[in-house]
Amino acid sequence: MDKKLDTFPVSARNKVRLMRQRGSYDKKLVYSILDSALLCNVGYVIDGQPYVTPTAFWREQNHLYWHGSSASRALIAQSKGIPVCLTVSHVDGLVIARSGFHSSVNYRSVMAFGQASLVEDEDHKRRAMDVYVDRFVPGRTSANRAATDKELQATKLLSMDIEEASAKVRVGMPVDDDEDYALPVWAGVVNFKTLVAGISPDPKNLPDVSVPPGIAVYAEG
Amino acid sequence: MDKKLDTFPVSARNKVRLMRQRGSYDKKLVYSILDSALLCNVGYVIDGQPYVTPTAFWREQNHLYWHGSSASRALIAQSKGIPVCLTVSHVDGLVIARSGFHSSVNYRSVMAFGQASLVEDEDHKRRAMDVYVDRFVPGRTSANRAATDKELQATKLLSMDIEEASAKVRVGMPVDDDEDYALPVWAGVVNFKTLVAGISPDPKNLPDVSVPPGIAVYAEG
Ligand SMILES: Cc1cc2nc3c(=O)[nH]c(=O)nc-3n(C[C@H](O)[C@H](O)[C@H](O)COP(=O)(O)OP(=O)(O)OC[C@H]3O[C@@H](n4cnc5c(N)ncnc54)[C@H](O)[C@@H]3O)c2cc1C
Ligand SMILES: Cc1cc2nc3c(=O)[nH]c(=O)nc-3n(C[C@H](O)[C@H](O)[C@H](O)COP(=O)(O)OP(=O)(O)OC[C@H]3O[C@@H](n4cnc5c(N)ncnc54)[C@H](O)[C@@H]3O)c2cc1C
Ligand code: HEM
Ligand code: HEM
Repeated sequence: MDKKLDTFPVSARNKVRLMRQRGSYDKKLVYSILDSALLCNVGYVIDGQPYVTPTAFWREQNHLYWHGSSASRALIAQSKGIPVCLTVSHVDGLVIARSGFHSSVNYRSVMAFGQASLVEDEDHKRRAMDVYVDRFVPGRTSANRAATDKELQATKLLSMDIEEASAKVRVGMPVDDDEDYALPVWAGVVNFKTLVAGISPDPKNLPDVSVPPGIAVYAEG
Repeated sequence: MDKKLDTFPVSARNKVRLMRQRGSYDKKLVYSILDSALLCNVGYVIDGQPYVTPTAFWREQNHLYWHGSSASRALIAQSKGIPVCLTVSHVDGLVIARSGFHSSVNYRSVMAFGQASLVEDEDHKRRAMDVYVDRFVPGRTSANRAATDKELQATKLLSMDIEEASAKVRVGMPVDDDEDYALPVWAGVVNFKTLVAGISPDPKNLPDVSVPPGIAVYAEG
């Protein structure tokens, strides 16, 4: 395959300059880091003031989607085609080195750049929201009552084609100065993991409803 | 105590407009959400382009600190007193409602606004970095070799006095439309938790180093 199709173009905006050996423009890597996150942080500017709004999001091919209220200040601003930076990060561990200086964090992150636009086509909007709902609980859309037209009207759905993106990943042990390996001090990595810590059924569930199979994917641990 | 001292001032910038019952300007709440995070997302603007950079950070009183390379594009830009938005979020659960529309996320988040400035005083810088290192592993600074002057010169430390901030928190069960509670469909919350998933000692540790007590706080689970 054409290498160009496998990687994002690189410009002054997304070129990883620091610790560049940790950087990548590989689409597969960028997509996998995006897909393993529920939450992103969307950066945008209103009257010169930057805002970073935490938002649930999802991806289809090279498009990122996020949604909210039709009255949202964030979404109204973003739907006007202003530049947006959408960032996703996973904190995988705390890297405890033999010096403060080499202490670090194991992480996987993506910064994606583009301009958002409003999904106005009703069918596209409904389909995209259904895909989103089914992403968390497969089959949920058909179990739920369908979204009403009024609900869809109250909803703004934004879509952003990723123009440029970069991934940055740190893995593994501390990288200490050669002479510091002789120090009698413990070094290593404290690994973090985000787990399902239990499922709380709504006390208002009808007595005879059963936990749907789609919830089974959230088995504890 | 004077109520004004307990809450951040509210302006058009940080006034929570949507789902405002979930918003708060209470300093205690804002600080507690900040303090339970290792990672923030810093938003800033260079030539009209917003960037959101994930960064480790910490708090002392009303000041937020973050650090990196003296050559960092992000830190060089931010140290010029441009407006910054620093956002922290915790994803606590997935809220599975009886309709797609009322599906949600349980979360705690903070958006903090201000202007960053460089910590240039050597003593302040060294002390702040030591506090930071000790934050993760108490007593670590005295166990490690001290930071060298060269290392401190290679480091940019930024500090931001929080001018305005807001917290937003969602907790609890789905809030469904009255008539939807009659639907025979399971609803509830899938709770998430970030845990220590194991400690990996550096294979290059000297044979006789022992795990320091400070690491004990990271007991698994
Ligand atoms: C969990 C976590 C904690 C971190 N903690 C710190 C910290 O405490 N101090 C610190 O200096 N850095 C930290 N980083 C790294 C930080 O995100 C930046 O990579 C680093 O600060 C350099 O920023 P810069 O703008 O100077 O880099 P540059 O290399 O000049 O940035 C240029 C471009 O490179 C790309 N890029 C840069 N960083 C990233 C990234 N993280 N992910 C994807 N693309 C990227 C972007 O396209 C960016 O526009 C952390 C990252 C993560 C995910
Ligand atoms: C994990 C997570 C997932 C989320 N997913 C979604 C989603 O999918 N769709 C959605 O619409 N919203 C989501 N939110 C809420 C989102 O962050 C915004 O609150 C919401 O989108 C309204 O944004 P706005 O700019 O229109 O609000 P406004 O109320 O107009 O924002 C004005 C000011 O209120 C304050 N504020 C707004 N939101 C927050 C916040 N989250 N934390 C602290 N202060 C805040 C800020 O100071 C902001 O400048 C999520 C939040 C979190 C933490
Ligand atoms: C799994 C699917 C979904 C998740 C996880 C989700 C999550 C969220 C979250 C976290 C918010 C922010 C609430 C807040 O500000 O505290 C939100 C707002 C909103 N969502 Fe969703 N959502 C989902 C599906 C849908 C669907 C299918 C629709 C429309 C048909 C929809 C319409 C809206 C609207 C209109 C708001 C704004 C509410 C307001 O501020 O008044 N959502 N969603
Ligand atoms: C627990 C303490 C610390 C943690 C968790 C930490 C974390 C990090 C992280 C995650 C990075 C980014 C690396 C990357 O881009 O991949 C970084 C960079 C950096 N840190 Fe720290 N750090 C800590 C302490 C210190 C101290 C004490 C100093 C200085 C004395 C320091 C100086 C630096 C410098 C100079 C960089 C930039 C490296 C480069 O890009 O060349 N750090 N730190």
